[in-house]
Amino acid sequence: MTLSSIAIILETEFSGADIEISGMNALKDATSSEVSFVANSKYIKDIQTTNAAAVIVPASFVEHLPEGCVALVVENSYWSMAILSKYFAPVIENDDLPKAQIGEGTKVSPKAEIANGAKIGKNCTILAHVYIGAEAVIGDNTIIYPSVTVYRDCVIGSDCIIHSNTAIGADGFGFATNKLGEHKKIYQNGNVVIEDDVEIGSNVSVDRAVFGTTLIKKGVRIDNLVQIGHNCEIGEYSVFVAQSGSAGSTKLGRNVVVGGQAAFAGHLEIAPFSTFAARSGITKSITESGLTFAGFPLMDHKLWLKLQVKIARLLK
Amino acid sequence: MTLSSIAIILETEFSGADIEISGMNALKDATSSEVSFVANSKYIKDIQTTNAAAVIVPASFVEHLPEGCVALVVENSYWSMAILSKYFAPVIENDDLPKAQIGEGTKVSPKAEIANGAKIGKNCTILAHVYIGAEAVIGDNTIIYPSVTVYRDCVIGSDCIIHSNTAIGADGFGFATNKLGEHKKIYQNGNVVIEDDVEIGSNVSVDRAVFGTTLIKKGVRIDNLVQIGHNCEIGEYSVFVAQSGSAGSTKLGRNVVVGGQAAFAGHLEIAPFSTFAARSGITKSITESGLTFAGFPLMDHKLWLKLQVKIARLLK
Amino acid sequence: MTLSSIAIILETEFSGADIEISGMNALKDATSSEVSFVANSKYIKDIQTTNAAAVIVPASFVEHLPEGCVALVVENSYWSMAILSKYFAPVIENDDLPKAQIGEGTKVSPKAEIANGAKIGKNCTILAHVYIGAEAVIGDNTIIYPSVTVYRDCVIGSDCIIHSNTAIGADGFGFATNKLGEHKKIYQNGNVVIEDDVEIGSNVSVDRAVFGTTLIKKGVRIDNLVQIGHNCEIGEYSVFVAQSGSAGSTKLGRNVVVGGQAAFAGHLEIAPFSTFAARSGITKSITESGLTFAGFPLMDHKLWLKLQVKIARLLK
Repeated sequence: MTLSSIAIILETEFSGADIEISGMNALKDATSSEVSFVANSKYIKDIQTTNAAAVIVPASFVEHLPEGCVALVVENSYWSMAILSKYFAPVIENDDLPKAQIGEGTKVSPKAEIANGAKIGKNCTILAHVYIGAEAVIGDNTIIYPSVTVYRDCVIGSDCIIHSNTAIGADGFGFATNKLGEHKKIYQNGNVVIEDDVEIGSNVSVDRAVFGTTLIKKGVRIDNLVQIGHNCEIGEYSVFVAQSGSAGSTKLGRNVVVGGQAAFAGHLEIAPFSTFAARSGITKSITESGLTFAGFPLMDHKLWLKLQVKIARLLK
Repeated sequence: MTLSSIAIILETEFSGADIEISGMNALKDATSSEVSFVANSKYIKDIQTTNAAAVIVPASFVEHLPEGCVALVVENSYWSMAILSKYFAPVIENDDLPKAQIGEGTKVSPKAEIANGAKIGKNCTILAHVYIGAEAVIGDNTIIYPSVTVYRDCVIGSDCIIHSNTAIGADGFGFATNKLGEHKKIYQNGNVVIEDDVEIGSNVSVDRAVFGTTLIKKGVRIDNLVQIGHNCEIGEYSVFVAQSGSAGSTKLGRNVVVGGQAAFAGHLEIAPFSTFAARSGITKSITESGLTFAGFPLMDHKLWLKLQVKIARLLK
Repeated sequence: MTLSSIAIILETEFSGADIEISGMNALKDATSSEVSFVANSKYIKDIQTTNAAAVIVPASFVEHLPEGCVALVVENSYWSMAILSKYFAPVIENDDLPKAQIGEGTKVSPKAEIANGAKIGKNCTILAHVYIGAEAVIGDNTIIYPSVTVYRDCVIGSDCIIHSNTAIGADGFGFATNKLGEHKKIYQNGNVVIEDDVEIGSNVSVDRAVFGTTLIKKGVRIDNLVQIGHNCEIGEYSVFVAQSGSAGSTKLGRNVVVGGQAAFAGHLEIAPFSTFAARSGITKSITESGLTFAGFPLMDHKLWLKLQVKIARLLK
């Protein structure tokens, strides 16, 4: 799509060459053929160093753009980004893609659906009612139980097990809201990558990234009914117990243990080898590794135990 | 079904004409061809004004019935209602219904199942392993991802997106319990109506109403793993973050924001533009609009923040 | 599998006859043709009375083994048990098993998948996209809604209703972890048994046992999005409200009521007729029946209400 067509969609103008734009991306990650956006003054420092070809901005941010970066000035840049995201959304299925490739020794149930463009490795077991989307890639020896959905473009490694009714790569929860309180969908054009030797329970939701990738690293274990928000990164061998979850863009180091019904707010960084007791509510980043926490608000686990004794004494 | 056959089922007698009964309904909503029930003295005022043809009641409530309304006197009216509900349950699928109607431009996967009597609008995308039940209605331009189930009689508007493994219209959680502790299912003979421009995440449960409708209004956004109980009403543009939920019959105004893992008790009324922080536990109605809450028990959000500081001081 | 092949797999030696081993089991339940393991000194008393043919043990536990019981000495017995569990895992599907038996009057959607070796009783309704695994058994008059998965070897009684997208018998959350923080799957070779007259909501996860059975007794009612961990036992007519759950091996008596989002830790015993308010966190066994609890940490429900008043006073 050309920059000039984007300007028309966003009902704005721009000065500079009318180049071809290949996609949308975050300020930090955008390449010189991508368009980005900024909606929050918190990200002004990222504007100055962006490589994006163009940035959707409110008028007041224009002065921060680096030389050669085109300003697409709009009133509500988050809303405009949402409008534009639809134009970069790939089609769900595409008949023009080549037939799916299925590796040697792999069994695919005749009642599974493998979309065109998908690639499945060797010795996998794909049971009935599984859906593997367009251009999704599955490694070797992976077992996918009935009624799992792997959305388009998602990648699952080798030696993985995905249990029934789990959704890998559904859209992250993203929308802009205008002054009237109406919402506009932000199309989630990223994907999910699950590395090797990962086991995921039943009824789990791992959302695709808005841009880039939601990443589940090697050896992770996810129990049932867990929520992994868009753009999360889950470190090697981390463990999520049932009904726990994480909001978007939170990054966990390796061997983090998340107790049942515990949950992370978004945009946190969690040090490796952290342990969170059941029902912990984590709203701040953890920088020191190897500690154990509990409670909401979160605190040291031993302190939480002490605090409960103190609280109980209020009854006396 | 005639009133006399109902009396036989409930092992009771009645005096009056043996009219044809078309269904069961709540006291307030029952028409003159429907039967209702009352099991709780809290609803005595509703008896006096009901239009129901007949009401299942314990003997002590008979005097409150309006003139012309037939009393079906039983010992345990809730249990008897449960028994009768089964007789009004529609069959799950019905070969006699006409073939499903599919609008122009709509793609239905050959691996989806569209039951007889269903109607799907124009330009929809219905992916593999989707189930659309008997007499369900889907609007235009709606996308339904794999392994979504839409139970019979449910209605989904135009421009909606429903993500994988979500269940729309499963039975609400209703049963009567006798003195022996045994349960009797209350058949959920209502439906779900989802208005236009609604997006629902993966692994969500929206239960059908016992009578009437569970209603999700225009523009609502529901994240993954959310529970919406029977007979809820979710106001326009309201937002449910992942793993939150509501028990039955709670009604939210427009633009209510429900944080992750927050939950409502049943039978509440929530003012528009209310915001609930993650893990709020809401057990009382909210009458003033535009406020922000947190905690369980629920309180003003700022107060909750202060309270956490005070609680932490107990450790000193 | 012979004891000598097991010794080779575990890279150890043994003294005694090279008998045929039929399976793995817990110390208490193992028969004289089964192998067991012990990894925790807490279970030393169970070693002394085990009937197991052989036990995987660290060197320090050997002296506790009863006469005639073979010691399979390893460094990390939990890890070794995990390694061995894979060898006893049945194949997921088996073409050599006889075609599924379907009882008279049962309707099976052509879009359901019934694996070889399964048996379904009379007058059942099995809707589209359901999966019934190998050697699973379903009673009479049971309704299974779309996209439910019943894993192999699981048993569902008569007069049950299982709602959409529920997973019965997915693997319990079991793995051993070594000093490097790597995980090794413990294959879950038990099953799930659901007795008669049970209703289970949508998006529920009931995990299969590691050994033996996860048991849901007669008349139980389970709402949506509930987690039942491996080896749990849920007493007759117990009720789980939406988004509640239990970790593994917890045993509930009859008529226990579990409020929304409440959860049990593992390995507890809960007295019959106990009631837990919404969001209770139960970490200790309950021995007295008929009481009502709330909170996390758990306490008497009335006490919890009083405590909330006291806590609120901290603000003054």
